Amino acid sequence: MPQTELAPVRGFRFSGVAAGIKKTGALDVGLAVADGPAVAAGVFTRNVVRAAPVLVAESRLASGTARAILANSGCANACTGQPGLDAALATTQALAAALAVETDAVLPASTGVIGRLLPAERISAHAGELVRRLSPEGFAEFAEAIRTTDRWPKLARRAVGGSSASLLGIAKGAGMIHPDMGPPQATMLAFLFTDLIVDRAVLEVALREAVDATFNACSVDGDTSTNDCVIAMASGASGERAGPELGAALRDVCSELARSIVADGEGSEHMAEIRVSGLASEAEARAVARTIATSLLVKTALFGKDANWGRLLAAAGRAGVQFDPSRAVIRIGGIEVARGGLAVGEEAERRAAEALAGASYAIELELGDGPAAFGYLTSDLGHGYVDVNAGYRS
Amino acid sequence: MPQTELAPVRGFRFSGVAAGIKKTGALDVGLAVADGPAVAAGVFTRNVVRAAPVLVAESRLASGTARAILANSGCANACTGQPGLDAALATTQALAAALAVETDAVLPASTGVIGRLLPAERISAHAGELVRRLSPEGFAEFAEAIRTTDRWPKLARRAVGGSSASLLGIAKGAGMIHPDMGPPQATMLAFLFTDLIVDRAVLEVALREAVDATFNACSVDGDTSTNDCVIAMASGASGERAGPELGAALRDVCSELARSIVADGEGSEHMAEIRVSGLASEAEARAVARTIATSLLVKTALFGKDANWGRLLAAAGRAGVQFDPSRAVIRIGGIEVARGGLAVGEEAERRAAEALAGASYAIELELGDGPAAFGYLTSDLGHGYVDVNAGYRS
Repeated sequence: MPQTELAPVRGFRFSGVAAGIKKTGALDVGLAVADGPAVAAGVFTRNVVRAAPVLVAESRLASGTARAILANSGCANACTGQPGLDAALATTQALAAALAVETDAVLPASTGVIGRLLPAERISAHAGELVRRLSPEGFAEFAEAIRTTDRWPKLARRAVGGSSASLLGIAKGAGMIHPDMGPPQATMLAFLFTDLIVDRAVLEVALREAVDATFNACSVDGDTSTNDCVIAMASGASGERAGPELGAALRDVCSELARSIVADGEGSEHMAEIRVSGLASEAEARAVARTIATSLLVKTALFGKDANWGRLLAAAGRAGVQFDPSRAVIRIGGIEVARGGLAVGEEAERRAAEALAGASYAIELELGDGPAAFGYLTSDLGHGYVDVNAGYRS
Repeated sequence: MPQTELAPVRGFRFSGVAAGIKKTGALDVGLAVADGPAVAAGVFTRNVVRAAPVLVAESRLASGTARAILANSGCANACTGQPGLDAALATTQALAAALAVETDAVLPASTGVIGRLLPAERISAHAGELVRRLSPEGFAEFAEAIRTTDRWPKLARRAVGGSSASLLGIAKGAGMIHPDMGPPQATMLAFLFTDLIVDRAVLEVALREAVDATFNACSVDGDTSTNDCVIAMASGASGERAGPELGAALRDVCSELARSIVADGEGSEHMAEIRVSGLASEAEARAVARTIATSLLVKTALFGKDANWGRLLAAAGRAGVQFDPSRAVIRIGGIEVARGGLAVGEEAERRAAEALAGASYAIELELGDGPAAFGYLTSDLGHGYVDVNAGYRS
């Protein structure tokens, strides 16, 4: 997923530095700053175990405004207790001093190994450099600085329909991806920047709806992180007030970032959209799609390019949702492989297996004539995932 | 897990044949027969998608008695509609005729690929051979005949405390293992044979309790099968009536078989018992243990022999159970790696990593001072699992 050249968003500047948190010497601390106080909203992991930066950022967002996001990779600062909280406070304080803003206006975010204390002094020592490097075009550095196992940086930009305003999204994530952020959920981090004028309540509702339909409907490995967070900031620098187009733009940008995260699933080669339809409620369709999207037997079959529709139907059957298997229609990459709950035939499965060789395809299950449907993104799972995660800390 | 020599159980005979269902020519159909009508009870998968043999056997068990179990590997006869039901009926009918018993007294069970019709004629053609080969020592053949990806056959035998009676268990299973059988769940098949005299209601309750504490508390890959079933038969041939020792013997034998299944998890090298304690209710402790036992990040860390306790705590935190992470104590193979939710240190993690090299170990999480605890069996997950399941049907 190569990134095309993206334009800046008015009212925001970005930077990234290598502070020595990653052993490799790559960029590992990013800074995003609004030129003035920005309207801000966030959604955070619903995991009971919540990293220090999640606790701090959520608390600070209660004000409804923010000035900066200080994000690091290489260390999640999760399961680090009071020393972890102290580290999040110290780093944001150092950054606030360098920016000459209130400490509470700086939101921390971290991703990386759990159980290791954030090396606060390394980040604080780079506060001045982070501020000096700030530029409207610095979002590419910022996106680089928050990568962990990501194969590529993740950015998406949209013009907001009917206005001169724009929305820029920057995300990271490839593993521990099964977001559950609430009140709508990976470690995934995503940051959204718009130059619209928008009320906090409007931004918050639009953000939650967008996250629920996109990040909360994707899975790489079924593991919900301690650090997931999505933060949206609005600078107002366009002079235009947000209308109903904001929701569509947020959903669009979040969808593109979620697709990029799943396509970048650790060791994966394929992205599948699981579309479940014909059920009574969206909650039921979501539960079935989610169960298929997280089934190891399904994900290894996708890795093997095996049109094993029996595993799809077996996973659907354990989702806790009632349906009549004898009415099921299943299509893989547009090829119907089961009808009336029965195999269509070997030729259909051979053609479906060809579709499974593609980088991206849809898997559709019609499970009745109910009105509700839901789509969930997932990736195949093979040797690459095992390699990344059996040796992650070494 | 080598099998020691086991003695027969009075009142039962067994056999196995190669009927050509498996391409390899290995044994693939097993028969177990009681000398007379036996008291019988069963528990079956709660998957909404239920294989033809599950539907037929459950219905026939309503009578409370049975005479024989006809089990095959190589084909699950699931998602096969009316033709699948017809195949289950035809094969049990052929077997009943060869045994000169009622068709309804023969319980079918199948395991293997989903979505393929059982080749009924191949099994029926071997009905006579299956009956001719029956012997009290034939359980080893039977155990061989129900293997799919199993690396070894699975048998366990106990004397029932305080009596001359005995209990013999035979199981299969290595993948699609996450049993949910009800009213207490893999494809796993297990068959239990005792020579006690027992009432149907007593046998059924004891079976459900044993299954809930053992098979329903183990996972290889989190996928609940369409074909799981456990059937218990009592011949009464010992002349002794079942007392409270029956429950203990059933639980013991089921536990040994469940441990053998998880130790044989597809491609796995290690078995871990996840012990969660200190919560308010057993249901909560079970939910947390289950979430850890099915976490891909935990299972790949076990494969990598990485004492990554942060992943353990992160998985616990997404189980939907409230606890205070800052009170968590975590031990891996007896080595305390976290206390008060914080790392004990690198030396402890190094020693824990040594424990992870063993074939079997405990992982303990104390999450508070509540009275409830629960243990769940799981396996590591690595390249072998991917190899088995990316190419299972080819």
